Amino acid sequence: MSIDSTTRAVVEPRLRNLFKERLVLAAESKNQDSIYGRDLWPITLLWQKANDTPYPADFIVWPETEKEIIDLISICREYKIPLVPYAGGSGVCGGTVPVYGGIICDVKRMDKIIELNEKNLTCTVEPGMNGQLFEEYLNRHGYTLGHFPSSIYVSTVGGWVATRAAGQLSTYYGKIEDMVLNLKMVLGNGETVETLPAPASAQGPDFNQIFIGSEGVLGIITSVTFKIHVYPKKRGFFAVKAKDVTQGIEFMRQVMREELKPAAVRLYDELDTAIIGSPEEKNDSNSESGTGYKAILKSLKEGKGLTTILRFAGLTNRAANIGLKFLNAGCLLLFTFEGPEELVATQLHLIEKLALDNQLDIKGEKPAEYWWNHRYDVSYNSPSVIKAGAFLDTCEVATTWDKLADLYFNVKNAVQDEVFIMAHFSHSYLNGNNIYFSIVGFADSYEESKKKYFRVWDKMMKVCLDMNVAISHHHSIGLLKQEYLKKQLGNKLPIWKSIKQACDPDNIMNPGKMGV
Amino acid sequence: MSIDSTTRAVVEPRLRNLFKERLVLAAESKNQDSIYGRDLWPITLLWQKANDTPYPADFIVWPETEKEIIDLISICREYKIPLVPYAGGSGVCGGTVPVYGGIICDVKRMDKIIELNEKNLTCTVEPGMNGQLFEEYLNRHGYTLGHFPSSIYVSTVGGWVATRAAGQLSTYYGKIEDMVLNLKMVLGNGETVETLPAPASAQGPDFNQIFIGSEGVLGIITSVTFKIHVYPKKRGFFAVKAKDVTQGIEFMRQVMREELKPAAVRLYDELDTAIIGSPEEKNDSNSESGTGYKAILKSLKEGKGLTTILRFAGLTNRAANIGLKFLNAGCLLLFTFEGPEELVATQLHLIEKLALDNQLDIKGEKPAEYWWNHRYDVSYNSPSVIKAGAFLDTCEVATTWDKLADLYFNVKNAVQDEVFIMAHFSHSYLNGNNIYFSIVGFADSYEESKKKYFRVWDKMMKVCLDMNVAISHHHSIGLLKQEYLKKQLGNKLPIWKSIKQACDPDNIMNPGKMGV
Repeated sequence: MSIDSTTRAVVEPRLRNLFKERLVLAAESKNQDSIYGRDLWPITLLWQKANDTPYPADFIVWPETEKEIIDLISICREYKIPLVPYAGGSGVCGGTVPVYGGIICDVKRMDKIIELNEKNLTCTVEPGMNGQLFEEYLNRHGYTLGHFPSSIYVSTVGGWVATRAAGQLSTYYGKIEDMVLNLKMVLGNGETVETLPAPASAQGPDFNQIFIGSEGVLGIITSVTFKIHVYPKKRGFFAVKAKDVTQGIEFMRQVMREELKPAAVRLYDELDTAIIGSPEEKNDSNSESGTGYKAILKSLKEGKGLTTILRFAGLTNRAANIGLKFLNAGCLLLFTFEGPEELVATQLHLIEKLALDNQLDIKGEKPAEYWWNHRYDVSYNSPSVIKAGAFLDTCEVATTWDKLADLYFNVKNAVQDEVFIMAHFSHSYLNGNNIYFSIVGFADSYEESKKKYFRVWDKMMKVCLDMNVAISHHHSIGLLKQEYLKKQLGNKLPIWKSIKQACDPDNIMNPGKMGV
Repeated sequence: MSIDSTTRAVVEPRLRNLFKERLVLAAESKNQDSIYGRDLWPITLLWQKANDTPYPADFIVWPETEKEIIDLISICREYKIPLVPYAGGSGVCGGTVPVYGGIICDVKRMDKIIELNEKNLTCTVEPGMNGQLFEEYLNRHGYTLGHFPSSIYVSTVGGWVATRAAGQLSTYYGKIEDMVLNLKMVLGNGETVETLPAPASAQGPDFNQIFIGSEGVLGIITSVTFKIHVYPKKRGFFAVKAKDVTQGIEFMRQVMREELKPAAVRLYDELDTAIIGSPEEKNDSNSESGTGYKAILKSLKEGKGLTTILRFAGLTNRAANIGLKFLNAGCLLLFTFEGPEELVATQLHLIEKLALDNQLDIKGEKPAEYWWNHRYDVSYNSPSVIKAGAFLDTCEVATTWDKLADLYFNVKNAVQDEVFIMAHFSHSYLNGNNIYFSIVGFADSYEESKKKYFRVWDKMMKVCLDMNVAISHHHSIGLLKQEYLKKQLGNKLPIWKSIKQACDPDNIMNPGKMGV
């Protein structure tokens, strides 16, 4: 879909006047068109492979100032043109796909540090700032944001805020919504709004928590003031092996209950332990010495023979699970701690005591340290599966402790006959946890792949809706989960729609998303 | 103001049918009328003294079930009758004053524990549960909420949530908005809504943070699931004396910067140190051995000669401040820590080291322990001032570290010629702090007292608006700060109004409040 050619002809000179060479006519540029017509949502990779661009953009613009964004919104309102905020393009749910065409507003040129306030421990930055560059900037000055999503090398700070992202150390530092002191946006109604720059208040709704996670449907973020931390003086590591997922969950829960404050907490299920676990861990246990599923692992890693084993996902899952059970492979559980040296030491001491009380198999610091040093490897290492024609996706859902194991088994059971599935548990809270499922699927044709993909998601999401758990912990909604969001919001949906209506009365901001 | 007598006559049998003996016709009961026409907002105490009830309620009802609330809202919608949720009545900003009359819905009979979920560390409770009884219930089972407002003996859990309350240990446990896993409300539109019972999510706005702090203008809270904590195994105390407010603030900032996690942090300015400081502290220093302002302190405490010294507030403030400077009285700064014994010990060690590095006068644990044991004394000990005909109020505002000292001095300067003023700094964050001002004022007549009261508030609030700081940190908005809220929200006000409109299209819920 795209805007009509008459409107396009009228709008083009206005945009050209505003953005000069920072405007691309996507409709005339096959290349730009297809890049900005997708993000890292796995289905868009299937589109790409099939040379399909179901939702092309009409224009792409690269603003450099808030003023340009205000002028841009004014043009879009005048001609009712869809406007989609875009930055890293690393979203995995299709949040930036321009479903009604229109203008992609790529804010990557708005990437400046506005202020580092060392007294307040805050840093104000433009939305297009690359995540890793932002963290490195802070590190050079002795600080950290504490936000380490696996996309950090490609995602931007604005994207983090727009999607309620979470980083690997969220158990200590919180999710991105906990890291924002305040922010500035230009709304779809043309107004520039700024939330209150106070550490806390008691004056009605928290506007930060209305704007954060709005995925571009309310307006465009133009600056964010983040809460930063002194770079930790010490980082400590600890690992145990649980006999199964249930025992692992129980230990995570106890760690949180005891008021310990780990930075990272990661429990891998048997399969994920075998695939992701550190080399030390693998050599140490027998987890890779089996033969029944060794070929499966090798195949998943290298893509060889993948289509065969994925055609029989049910058998594959079963073979892998039986093999791992037979070998007593167990589940790796990693923790990191950071902060003042004495506090880290005390916490390591306390967690070790707790592990001993629980008669867990203590693995020391090596496996956790190995994970820390290789934590971005996986994210940038998946193409072998994609190249083999399979789809790979992740599904991150969260719930309270009492429902966590059930959620894990129910989601697995719902789809294990169709896709290869494994999971790890990360992002722990006092009251519950996130589960991060990885699924790998294959079908013989493009059309069949798409069908299978959505069928599998539908099954997973139905389990989540039935159990009333978070359908997304940190990947957000996008195009993928919109219908499930609407179902889950139920009679709260009209409230969300009223917010949309007040902020964007002409429905120009990322239309067709987020159930509004 | 009240509803017209025709409507009252029609509605009465419907309410009687619904609530039986749990209905009072306030219009016919002078006593009930005046009680429910006010809360603990100091101006309503002036009303009481003057036998003035400017905003009488028409009916008071005590529902016992959510179903009754749904039926009540249905009646109110049918006849467009204002409905004001009420519980402890301990608000200090007039939030429950029925400015358009109508029905006071007192939820104090909805005071049951619905579920203690020890696995999730959550407790679900009805809104009318008394705060202290709730904490004691949790304590009996080995838990704490960690929420200790000075009103705890009279306030309710629903009131806490409706006003974004903060307790004395908020630096560790957070404010009430951080303690809510999810909640249930009946909205003004008759819908029962429930927020997502997940520890975190990435699916648009956080509805908890829309409903929390809504002060009854959206609907009535019918249950809240709180995040609870294991009762701390150890509580540790630490105190220092700073030479002045500026040095005290700087040390608080450093403590937070170093990632220490105190539970309570309290810095008293010179005057507050002299009045509130522990006996040990007072004997230890010369802070009460002066004579210039000894009479003032005695008078403030006992009410004798109060009117005289308050008539000349400017002189009183100056005399007190000069006396305290001359005596080098300094500012007391208290910390408490709680949690696992080893962690508390480590933190006490680290904070002592930091205090030594800052060459602060270390006072050990006694003054902080004394405060902990007497922390509710002040709140229940103010009548002497009131009896003398003066008004006493508190103003709690919050900002980032870089503006904190300026905010303190600017607010003081703005009003010190009219009222006696002192302050303490509590509720510390990584990025800033709250200031809690206490003011005592007097005028010869009821009318003059009211005028002075609002003039002083206007001056304090203008400073806050000019400096763009939080006009309320935890006492909320009520009637008192509504106009300032509207100014501060600015172009965000239409968004807040759209939420109100969606939740309460007939504007029956606590009308005339919160700028909507």
